[in-house]
Amino acid sequence: MLRNRIHEIMTAGKSGQKVVVFGWVRTKRMSKNLSFIAINDGSCQDLLQVVVDADSEASECLKQVQTGCSIKVEGLLKDSPAKGQKWEIVADTLTIIGEVTAQDYPLQKKGHSLEFLRDVAHLRPRTNTFGAVFRVRNVLAQAVHNFFSQRNFIWAHTPILTASDCEGAGEMFTVTGFDLNNLPLKSGKVDYSQDFFGRRAHLTVSGQLEAEFLALSLGDVYTFGPTFRAENSNTSRHLSEFWMVEPEMAFADLEADIQVANEFVTYLIREVVQKCTEEINFFEKFYKNVKLSDLEKLAEAKYQKVSYTDAIKILQESKKSFEFPVDWGADLQTEHERFLSEQVFKGPVTVFDYPKDIKSFYMRNNDDGKTVAAMDVLVPGVGELIGGSQREERLDILEGRMDQLSIIKDDLQWYLDLRRFGSVPHAGFGMGFERMVMFVTGMQNIRDVIPCPRTPNFINF
Amino acid sequence: MLRNRIHEIMTAGKSGQKVVVFGWVRTKRMSKNLSFIAINDGSCQDLLQVVVDADSEASECLKQVQTGCSIKVEGLLKDSPAKGQKWEIVADTLTIIGEVTAQDYPLQKKGHSLEFLRDVAHLRPRTNTFGAVFRVRNVLAQAVHNFFSQRNFIWAHTPILTASDCEGAGEMFTVTGFDLNNLPLKSGKVDYSQDFFGRRAHLTVSGQLEAEFLALSLGDVYTFGPTFRAENSNTSRHLSEFWMVEPEMAFADLEADIQVANEFVTYLIREVVQKCTEEINFFEKFYKNVKLSDLEKLAEAKYQKVSYTDAIKILQESKKSFEFPVDWGADLQTEHERFLSEQVFKGPVTVFDYPKDIKSFYMRNNDDGKTVAAMDVLVPGVGELIGGSQREERLDILEGRMDQLSIIKDDLQWYLDLRRFGSVPHAGFGMGFERMVMFVTGMQNIRDVIPCPRTPNFINF
Repeated sequence: MLRNRIHEIMTAGKSGQKVVVFGWVRTKRMSKNLSFIAINDGSCQDLLQVVVDADSEASECLKQVQTGCSIKVEGLLKDSPAKGQKWEIVADTLTIIGEVTAQDYPLQKKGHSLEFLRDVAHLRPRTNTFGAVFRVRNVLAQAVHNFFSQRNFIWAHTPILTASDCEGAGEMFTVTGFDLNNLPLKSGKVDYSQDFFGRRAHLTVSGQLEAEFLALSLGDVYTFGPTFRAENSNTSRHLSEFWMVEPEMAFADLEADIQVANEFVTYLIREVVQKCTEEINFFEKFYKNVKLSDLEKLAEAKYQKVSYTDAIKILQESKKSFEFPVDWGADLQTEHERFLSEQVFKGPVTVFDYPKDIKSFYMRNNDDGKTVAAMDVLVPGVGELIGGSQREERLDILEGRMDQLSIIKDDLQWYLDLRRFGSVPHAGFGMGFERMVMFVTGMQNIRDVIPCPRTPNFINF
Repeated sequence: MLRNRIHEIMTAGKSGQKVVVFGWVRTKRMSKNLSFIAINDGSCQDLLQVVVDADSEASECLKQVQTGCSIKVEGLLKDSPAKGQKWEIVADTLTIIGEVTAQDYPLQKKGHSLEFLRDVAHLRPRTNTFGAVFRVRNVLAQAVHNFFSQRNFIWAHTPILTASDCEGAGEMFTVTGFDLNNLPLKSGKVDYSQDFFGRRAHLTVSGQLEAEFLALSLGDVYTFGPTFRAENSNTSRHLSEFWMVEPEMAFADLEADIQVANEFVTYLIREVVQKCTEEINFFEKFYKNVKLSDLEKLAEAKYQKVSYTDAIKILQESKKSFEFPVDWGADLQTEHERFLSEQVFKGPVTVFDYPKDIKSFYMRNNDDGKTVAAMDVLVPGVGELIGGSQREERLDILEGRMDQLSIIKDDLQWYLDLRRFGSVPHAGFGMGFERMVMFVTGMQNIRDVIPCPRTPNFINF
């Protein structure tokens, strides 16, 4: 079908150009001589105004045109006299492609609450808000690949299905080929040896361990895909299925890790500032949780860093009263992270060398015996955006740590092999992708930055 | 850590340049005056030859250097007198970073069978073969994103977890938060209303249905991520977890679908030809299932098309004896597809308008009452590489088809809504990503083109 996308018209249209536009009707305003139809085709945030003369052939089906239906318009572009729009199209012909056959099209002209729109997740991308969210999400997603491929990182397709249940990052879903109404038993327990994979299988909570073996052969790799948590937490910041970016680098220490993480965040923000001006302006105007000028500043910000121990001192000496106590050995809470980033460092800041007891088994032990080479990147408004570490590459120390934490080593012999055969210093980090989308759009609920949110008791669409 | 990657040295090195290289030892050859160590750091297919003078400081730890250990070398680049390598590095210092602590490093100098290497999937990317496979895989994966983002398609993150069990593409895995040894029952059956999502959940077999709602708001979208089949088939062409690319386009008919599919395949092959010369040469030399010159021809090939009905006639009139019968109404088998592509059209060919009884419920019914607007792209050596269709956008016809096939509509009301509210012609296709990797590398077993293959009774690493 020959067609001009509204995005192309808005960026490269010419006065008097003949165009054919397909789109969905957002609004219609009829008057005696001229009627106006605003349509969107998903290619950009803009609506294109269609002008229909009452005397034209195009006006014949004007009555049937209503919000939500899809139409085809042929006509000429002309400069629009209306404020805020460059072009309008004077319709020669107007054809209805798809009517609204039910009386109750859920998306009427009036604004709808974000809660309401979650129940029509299959239609909400037709709204300005979700069109903008998903275009920003896409720009960020493409930017992830561009950032790493420019640096010769390999996109590592780590598995979703895993037999390991000791990744240590949270509760895991069980995956099975069994008919649950007909489970094979052995000594009164489910006999997983008869299951599809011959053993119990789960959905991954992180691709990191597999990314490590790929980094320790291919050098620099990153994962970018869905991960899962079977945690029964119904908050505005948690999903059961969400996307993670996890780079992993051979021959890299914590210092290199921090540098790549900082460059990564800067790059993503720059891409959004450059490519999503219209969308960010929309969020600034209608939701007021983000400012384009703030993002522009962040895109140029110098990234600072502070050790966890110094950060604790700063927090304690601030005399500010926090909800959660500030003690060496306790994890930083979002209120602490935001205070450090917003009030103390007035920009992004990386905290490094955390107490080992609050961090994962695979993080590299520092010589002080108390801390590990871990780091978190904190940003204003959000707190932790990225968490990473240098990995423990010394076999004896790693095994000792696993013993202390009662992690069964049988399933992770392959992981220990990486320390037996040409072990090298290596490091990586993880970024929850939805958190980044929330950060740049200012959306407050994680359910509103992913097309099909999955949360406890919610798996529609 | 300051370091020069071998890839950078090979493409931009200068004679006399001082370099610091980290890598894993592939081979060592000692002699009285000069010793040679070949190392790889994963950044490219090339090995870098390290020359160690017996009188130099660097020779001190030479004895401990063995296959598989990781080393650091500082020295000067010089033109190599050896055939097939541009540079070698004359070592000033040589440091062992990680020894081989076990006696039994699985990857010795001798070649290993692909079967053996599957059991050490965590180490196999250190071999020439798998280093090449995963670099080609990455080039293809980046090319997928480049192709679609250049055309303003949005990467749609469709869900892995789904409650729909009628996607119609195969057996599905069950995902549960239940303790299988302690299932809640209701009237003697498992009470899924008490499960994590309040109902039975599965792993997706395709993102298409969700991609449709995103296309019918955002215009042009594509998915690229893992999909799952719980089929107990142990063949060289099936995985339980594999990656799919699924574009979906609003305002597009079958003709547009075929055109995008053909441009897509051409683009992917061109990218491989341009960026993976060394790897394809390696596969041509050592595995002999692919030729760079054939791929170059395919990258320039004109794509032809033929209706299913005409294809059946051609096959019947060919008088060739096939294993499977050729009858109008039966699906084409790989032998038929390859014959059409290799012998008849001598290149890629798209077959379109298949009998509706062998195709999915969502494909658009043609006016002949017998066929649907489906298409498959066939390529030499493989057969079907892509399958797609225009989707049925007419509510009454789609519902009628679902009734005929006894598909329960309750769970798909949202999908039918897309036909109730501004329905538009739309089309899309799917490409099994591993099949494309196999096609360009000539690898014969799908387990050898993905880092962590999952198949019945195999879920290691």
